[in-house]
Amino acid sequence: MNKKEAKANRKNIAVNKLKSLGDMILEDVEKNQVPSIRVPSRGTSNIVYDDEKRYYVLGDRYGRRSLGNVKQIKKLAQMVYIANFCKGLMETGKTATLREMYYVSEGWDIDFGDQQESNIVGEDLEVTLGMTREDLGLMPEEDGASVYGKLKVMEGDVEIDAMRSGKSGYTIPPSIDEVDFVEHDVKRVIAVETMGMFHRLVQENAYKKFDTLIVGLKGQAARATRRFLKRVNEELHLPVYICNDGDPWGFHIAMVIISGSAKLAHVNHELATPDARFLGVTASDIINYDLPTDPLKDIDVLRLKELLKDPRYKDEQWKMEIKKMMKIGKKAEQQSFSKYGLEYVVDTYLPQKLEQME
Amino acid sequence: MNKKEAKANRKNIAVNKLKSLGDMILEDVEKNQVPSIRVPSRGTSNIVYDDEKRYYVLGDRYGRRSLGNVKQIKKLAQMVYIANFCKGLMETGKTATLREMYYVSEGWDIDFGDQQESNIVGEDLEVTLGMTREDLGLMPEEDGASVYGKLKVMEGDVEIDAMRSGKSGYTIPPSIDEVDFVEHDVKRVIAVETMGMFHRLVQENAYKKFDTLIVGLKGQAARATRRFLKRVNEELHLPVYICNDGDPWGFHIAMVIISGSAKLAHVNHELATPDARFLGVTASDIINYDLPTDPLKDIDVLRLKELLKDPRYKDEQWKMEIKKMMKIGKKAEQQSFSKYGLEYVVDTYLPQKLEQME
Repeated sequence: MNKKEAKANRKNIAVNKLKSLGDMILEDVEKNQVPSIRVPSRGTSNIVYDDEKRYYVLGDRYGRRSLGNVKQIKKLAQMVYIANFCKGLMETGKTATLREMYYVSEGWDIDFGDQQESNIVGEDLEVTLGMTREDLGLMPEEDGASVYGKLKVMEGDVEIDAMRSGKSGYTIPPSIDEVDFVEHDVKRVIAVETMGMFHRLVQENAYKKFDTLIVGLKGQAARATRRFLKRVNEELHLPVYICNDGDPWGFHIAMVIISGSAKLAHVNHELATPDARFLGVTASDIINYDLPTDPLKDIDVLRLKELLKDPRYKDEQWKMEIKKMMKIGKKAEQQSFSKYGLEYVVDTYLPQKLEQME
Repeated sequence: MNKKEAKANRKNIAVNKLKSLGDMILEDVEKNQVPSIRVPSRGTSNIVYDDEKRYYVLGDRYGRRSLGNVKQIKKLAQMVYIANFCKGLMETGKTATLREMYYVSEGWDIDFGDQQESNIVGEDLEVTLGMTREDLGLMPEEDGASVYGKLKVMEGDVEIDAMRSGKSGYTIPPSIDEVDFVEHDVKRVIAVETMGMFHRLVQENAYKKFDTLIVGLKGQAARATRRFLKRVNEELHLPVYICNDGDPWGFHIAMVIISGSAKLAHVNHELATPDARFLGVTASDIINYDLPTDPLKDIDVLRLKELLKDPRYKDEQWKMEIKKMMKIGKKAEQQSFSKYGLEYVVDTYLPQKLEQME
């Protein structure tokens, strides 16, 4: 199956799953049974860290939504309306944001109290069908990361060169699964937390020096970014390194890319990149490179303690770095390497760290 | 003078201004005078709304920083260090973020208490030289807006086509003044507040329908975005329309593009686009299009009252819309047009509003 077929297939699967949801309800009606559907539970007790997969997954508990239960009638009807809306999107080749869907629903015969309510039913649909909502045409508001380097992709009929999209790079669109990788001439991917660091790496020709794609995460990685990193890792077999601020928040931005979030346990199989690796800034880096630091705040220490208990951080390396950070009581930003000059991070730090890791 | 010369000229002016700052100090020393420099005041009493220019400017009050004043010695020395750092950036063709500069300063013989302090001295330099800090090589962290449509630009040797940079568009880089406009085939620019609306306009082919560039502001417009809008308006003679949420915050995102901010009075001549126009969502739109609304919160009403007193809103049309919004007590988001279907905003609302305005 070539790429075009795979993509069409992905879309067909979505349409078919939506249809079969409707069929199930119709069948019940035809058999004079009370229609009901199975919705996997998203309660915390059904969210499990899977040691083998190395990310959170949903357990096998589920609930039933039945038209025989007065409390559930509305929720089930809402889900059918949303499924129908998504089917329409698929058929017209359009997408919509959750916000747009909420407003569109004003014209439906069933209402949502607020957008929160329609979002939750959207998630219910996602988990019921086992697909991401992007596959159903429901896109997040926010775009993904910026990408710079020797990568060519196709969006529809347009070929895009991530070396010729401007110094701020190619922006990963919410509809990243519609994008095909055409050609690349890189050996790895380095993702950095801030656009300040992204521009530094572009300016110092890091893409050439390290044969790398440079990805500017812009803080917590958007869903589209996580999907992109998973795809370059698995489809193009490129190792992914993440370089963030040396504090619990930087750690966790990396970890959500690596092992997914608990909240999205039902779609982590599409988003998590368990083989992605945290390059730095580690507590050891703070010491070894004598970086300018800020003292840890109470909230940082609290967060570090939480991370220690988090199954995603069970690796000895992580535990050691978290404990070391608590011991020195300091954190450092990734831009703090500038203490040694603007070029230092590319000329000295990254080569040393990459050598250690590869 | 062609574009290349103009750009080189811009850079030369910056270098020369930096040099003459140093010369002034040296001359004083040679004449056995106590060195001092004139720094225009940025105090609120020196920020004036200029009726003719239609944006905030600095008045003609200024202070003197003198090495004869113990309190000012450090500030003046800090400014000289920063000026020297900027000169280095110009000469090597590099840029740095304010954050990087702060960390670089760790290696200087003079210190800054925190980044806040180095930022302020950076602004002092900006106002003293009458140039933006981008002209001095000091870039903001954040990128600008996304642009989609028939526009080709040059960044260095790379030609970029804003129709072929992906569905999420061409990202305006912080160094927008290094960008040349090469070719365009549009009659106007429509800037929208959210990326949700940006993707809607791209998807509904609004760029074709209205011969327009589509600009996704991502909330409050970054400096690079404001500079871009000013440049397309003045260099390419394109009318600029801004379509935001119908609330005081949406109004003000537009107004800062149009008439600049008080805080940046010293660089508004580079950033403000007085001929840009607010297309909607207005209070009248909320009524005429019977949009889904939310009630105004106390903080919205407070803000609307502030806007009424703001000289930038002295136009009768603005005053009427602000009062009308307070009267109906309601606000509406730009995506609320989806009530009438996803296409409505492009098929009905925008054509009607553009006809009214053109």
